Amino acid sequence: MTGQAAITGIGQTEFTKASGRTVLSQCVEASTKAIRDAGLEPADIDGIITYTFDTNDEIAVQRSLRIPELRWTSRTPFGGELSYATFQLAAAAVASGAANHVLIYRAFNERSEARFGQPNANAQAADLEQREFYRGFGLNTPAQVYGLWYRPYLDRYGVTSADLGAYVVQARDYAATNPLAWFHNRPLTLEEHQASRWIVEPVLRKLDCCMETDGGIAFIVSFLSHARASTRPVVRILAAEQLWLHGSEVMYNYYQPDLTAQASTERLAANLWRASGLSPAEIDVMTIYENFSPIVPMSLEAYGFCKPGEGRELINSGGIGRGGVIPVNTNGGLLGEAYIHGLNNVTEAVRQLRGSAANQVAGARTALVTGRHCAMLLARE
Amino acid sequence: MTGQAAITGIGQTEFTKASGRTVLSQCVEASTKAIRDAGLEPADIDGIITYTFDTNDEIAVQRSLRIPELRWTSRTPFGGELSYATFQLAAAAVASGAANHVLIYRAFNERSEARFGQPNANAQAADLEQREFYRGFGLNTPAQVYGLWYRPYLDRYGVTSADLGAYVVQARDYAATNPLAWFHNRPLTLEEHQASRWIVEPVLRKLDCCMETDGGIAFIVSFLSHARASTRPVVRILAAEQLWLHGSEVMYNYYQPDLTAQASTERLAANLWRASGLSPAEIDVMTIYENFSPIVPMSLEAYGFCKPGEGRELINSGGIGRGGVIPVNTNGGLLGEAYIHGLNNVTEAVRQLRGSAANQVAGARTALVTGRHCAMLLARE
Repeated sequence: MTGQAAITGIGQTEFTKASGRTVLSQCVEASTKAIRDAGLEPADIDGIITYTFDTNDEIAVQRSLRIPELRWTSRTPFGGELSYATFQLAAAAVASGAANHVLIYRAFNERSEARFGQPNANAQAADLEQREFYRGFGLNTPAQVYGLWYRPYLDRYGVTSADLGAYVVQARDYAATNPLAWFHNRPLTLEEHQASRWIVEPVLRKLDCCMETDGGIAFIVSFLSHARASTRPVVRILAAEQLWLHGSEVMYNYYQPDLTAQASTERLAANLWRASGLSPAEIDVMTIYENFSPIVPMSLEAYGFCKPGEGRELINSGGIGRGGVIPVNTNGGLLGEAYIHGLNNVTEAVRQLRGSAANQVAGARTALVTGRHCAMLLARE
Repeated sequence: MTGQAAITGIGQTEFTKASGRTVLSQCVEASTKAIRDAGLEPADIDGIITYTFDTNDEIAVQRSLRIPELRWTSRTPFGGELSYATFQLAAAAVASGAANHVLIYRAFNERSEARFGQPNANAQAADLEQREFYRGFGLNTPAQVYGLWYRPYLDRYGVTSADLGAYVVQARDYAATNPLAWFHNRPLTLEEHQASRWIVEPVLRKLDCCMETDGGIAFIVSFLSHARASTRPVVRILAAEQLWLHGSEVMYNYYQPDLTAQASTERLAANLWRASGLSPAEIDVMTIYENFSPIVPMSLEAYGFCKPGEGRELINSGGIGRGGVIPVNTNGGLLGEAYIHGLNNVTEAVRQLRGSAANQVAGARTALVTGRHCAMLLARE
């Protein structure tokens, strides 16, 4: 079943801080562009997939796009935690014959309306039950919840705020030369990062946190034979995995024996490598769902690009930068380009494999896309 | 891909009007029973699927059941409209290799907490945008919304309240001999049906409306080779389809050229027959998601068991009863057994194919399960 699906279309709106538009109109704009990008018509689309947190009703999207008939609709639970599991669902839909071309979308006014970075802003969260245990202790925002998780890791391996800043400077370097990025033409110095105010002291400065963005992104996932009929390079989904170990929570569960270990991510990585038949040495470009900067060294380690504790060194030595051994978030990532619940990192991976990225990695043929509870391996055919 | 999945486990709670328990505890009870019924352990389960309307967090269910690792989670949009599409998703999950054994669940206190039959009760509905167009005209409950749709059909074919009563009497006849049914030992006469008060005059009496129930139901869907290793009869999913035509709404869209036609259901039926390779003559038992009685004759017609307008005659002549040409809702259906968002009709179909139903259809080998925007064909191997 592996590898029977391909990403054939990508589309997006402008990324803004105040779109002044409905979320649905942004969803439809991104979707229309993705359908066109795939060389398809709305009548070719027969499946729709999004997140449970998305507010765009499938039926409203279908009506707006004038899709005659849908034979598959489904949602991944929660929000960004399963961003890339939408592709797992889409791959299963087309591989099982339930659909030929599936539209994936995510759109929100996450800066101008409900801000994820604010306390209680994400009131639609399905995990309120668990979070009630934490709120009383002041853990009301993702920065607070994740900051507490990162700290033991940072302490154990001596990762400093300046080490995290090295990633942020790299991300902004990529963003500066990416015309689609919010921080286009605005590179950052380490000094500026170090002057950024604390959000969760001594872990996260403001510039360690991802942006809040208004916008929409959409993709088309097609059965492989349809993708091969297209004139574009074929971007196959070699593997798409999600993972919830017992004791997981949507954001983080502190009741684990070793908070510096990454059992869940390492298991997810192992499943992905096994399913795809690839290894870290064969990956040309990587994206990391860096809602916060510490997850970058942690992910480099968990996915096997270096040993535990060596992520900071890999970053400081330029290993994830231009010409590095594993370029990471070449679009600027969620800190430099935009935060559309992680999907803009998939757009970047597709562009890299098509050879059309702003910061193109020469000859990129494989891309690893990682998130909190999901990951995906793409390959140019 | 068709037929690579099987339903290997079923489980349920008691059906009540006031469970006095949390929804999660009912979900976990039903799930535990389904896992045991499949001859499995929680550690065998690697996928979870439910509806977006379900309030049971996948992570909470995983924690409660002590499932070590989940590699697939997804939800079908809305509630009962896509009840059986959960099996389409599960079949794709196991057929694509993403999971081996998927748990499907649905649990609620739909009588003692949020009542679907009351105005505004279903505030979680994703389709509020559309429904705002109707609410101002008094269409606040499913009975009101659907009642307006049924009326042109009933008028065109001269279907009377007594014709609908014939179905209800038949459903209650089945329920009376089903120990799991709410109306066990309580058959109904046509006179009693005709004395039932109007909910939407002159279409729906109280006894034409499905029940409101507290309870939970769960299933295990397994990859076919795993199912064959079990000692139980193998119940294959020959086909599971969902369908949204352009212009659909979650409940009903009145802006259609002919309100007495059933374009959507007929198209869904055609897709299902094509996918399964079966025809109406080959079906041994059928379940219909009869949230309201008029959908029974309409479905018999749309699925090809009789011609348009002849559904009432098929029912009045005993065609759906014991020994009839196509026994329907042999558990008592949603009017006689319970209303767990339609899933209890799947439990009945599985029991029929296992040969263990209270009102067993002798030698049943195929079962058709139909809903508003989804349908499924099951077969005993």
